[in-house]
Amino acid sequence: MKTLSDVGEFGFIELITRRVAAAGSTSSVVLGPGDDAALLRLPPGRELVVSTDALVEGVHFRFQTQSARCVGRRALVANLSDLAAMGARPLACVAALSAPGSLPLASARGLVDGILHEAGRHACPLVGGNLAAASETSMAITVLGSVERGRALRRHRVRKGDLVFVTGTLGGQALALARAEHQGRTIRSLPTPRIAAGRALARLSGVGGVIDVSDGLVADLAHLLEGSGLGIDLDCSRVPRPRGFDAGCRQLGLDPERLALGGGEDYELAFTLRSRAAARTSPAALARRLGVAVSKVGRVTGDPGFTGVPERLGWSHF
Amino acid sequence: MKTLSDVGEFGFIELITRRVAAAGSTSSVVLGPGDDAALLRLPPGRELVVSTDALVEGVHFRFQTQSARCVGRRALVANLSDLAAMGARPLACVAALSAPGSLPLASARGLVDGILHEAGRHACPLVGGNLAAASETSMAITVLGSVERGRALRRHRVRKGDLVFVTGTLGGQALALARAEHQGRTIRSLPTPRIAAGRALARLSGVGGVIDVSDGLVADLAHLLEGSGLGIDLDCSRVPRPRGFDAGCRQLGLDPERLALGGGEDYELAFTLRSRAAARTSPAALARRLGVAVSKVGRVTGDPGFTGVPERLGWSHF
Repeated sequence: MKTLSDVGEFGFIELITRRVAAAGSTSSVVLGPGDDAALLRLPPGRELVVSTDALVEGVHFRFQTQSARCVGRRALVANLSDLAAMGARPLACVAALSAPGSLPLASARGLVDGILHEAGRHACPLVGGNLAAASETSMAITVLGSVERGRALRRHRVRKGDLVFVTGTLGGQALALARAEHQGRTIRSLPTPRIAAGRALARLSGVGGVIDVSDGLVADLAHLLEGSGLGIDLDCSRVPRPRGFDAGCRQLGLDPERLALGGGEDYELAFTLRSRAAARTSPAALARRLGVAVSKVGRVTGDPGFTGVPERLGWSHF
Repeated sequence: MKTLSDVGEFGFIELITRRVAAAGSTSSVVLGPGDDAALLRLPPGRELVVSTDALVEGVHFRFQTQSARCVGRRALVANLSDLAAMGARPLACVAALSAPGSLPLASARGLVDGILHEAGRHACPLVGGNLAAASETSMAITVLGSVERGRALRRHRVRKGDLVFVTGTLGGQALALARAEHQGRTIRSLPTPRIAAGRALARLSGVGGVIDVSDGLVADLAHLLEGSGLGIDLDCSRVPRPRGFDAGCRQLGLDPERLALGGGEDYELAFTLRSRAAARTSPAALARRLGVAVSKVGRVTGDPGFTGVPERLGWSHF
């Protein structure tokens, strides 16, 4: 089996450069990989959005439960989801890959192909990178996006009385991972970053705080509330779960509510609406605007912490 | 001794956030750390420049020979140097730090303080980051800059007959590192990214190819020549070395020419000028324009490879 060492740093960079060229680009890219830096054009009237995130082998992924391609896809999805939570449109990304020379070449290629797959799907071309020797495999991706000046969505705009909504369903990724580990095979299902929904939210009036659900619903709602002194009364029965989720959890001896409220990496958007804006719309109307199912799951209260979360989960004072 | 684990992920992020706030910002930053992404303004008429680079413990640095603060500074300098080589002005940076929980808190703080030090010196505020658990310490930094539309410096614009120049002196960092290792103490001297010189070059006419010297002069000149089918006749006696360099090398039994031509991380700029532009100026006049010493070290020829490089160094066919 060929490894990274066999082709060497420059051999691998050449291989990637060809794949990047084949993956195509966008009109925003003035200069892609191959120079000291990439050059991009930002459309007029827009602000630049930037976020960075790293995945480390053994901590965030294992090649036993995820194919390299899947890890690469997930790495970019995590970053794109941050753009979604700002209401931004993707512009481009760069990736720093660190790996031992013994990494199978197929894995290294898989990581890059996974990034390029999502990059292509979301018009977020890979314009630069770095390859470093290391004793463990990790990937740090920085994603750039743009948003109309002054229209970026923000976390810390929650107000008392806001209603709390979430897109799609939650817990599915946590269950898929548990199932893959239990069955000793690799995970197949992948979350979709809610780019279009985020952009639609950025055009909506009456939006309060917005965050993507990467750590788990309760943990991420806690981030929304940070520093506000406010709390959320959560209606756990309304937290949307995938079809067949509860039965799937029970098969593995897992608590469906714990997974739906605590499972991360679903990359849905959680957001609040001012009560007046919420009164003028409905989850169904919001779903049409956002292009994805929307559920109302709670209300912002003046008391710090969470109410409505089952005692046994221990998250009341998150 | 306190470690990263002792304060936890969120404790460390809070600590960094305070330091980042204290380090100040620039008018380009609409929103710094603390949300899903940072927001930046790009001045009108300018293109965005983006580059990413990673440093890994045991590969690019060791805490035995460099203080954590020095490692942090060097990590950002390496990135800023890529901006310099594009003729760009720094805009902002983001950093992804991966480290074991056992990393002394002082080291983690030192890395961040080092980044913030250079960020402050070069008006390149740290606007976001990521902290991940890992078994070894590494830092992936992405730096953003801006350059007047269409004025970016580029590597692959070398033409036959161009004259080859280099800023500052070369080999100093390699000697300092060798000396630190020999004496069992940490390295003190640090290179300066040639931001101002790069920006001046971007305004100059008759500039050919430009690159920063990060791998070593011969290796980086080889990057300049990539795909051109051209070569360089190097005048090794003119490659500028720091004062006392040759004696310092001999004390350690090192070959001064090998270090000056092969030592990396000096982060000087190497560039070519069209022969007509070169004839209208001089190294002294260029030094005034660029704000740093400039030496003429060779000429671009039609024969691939290097001439003038001592046979014993084995770089003639680099």
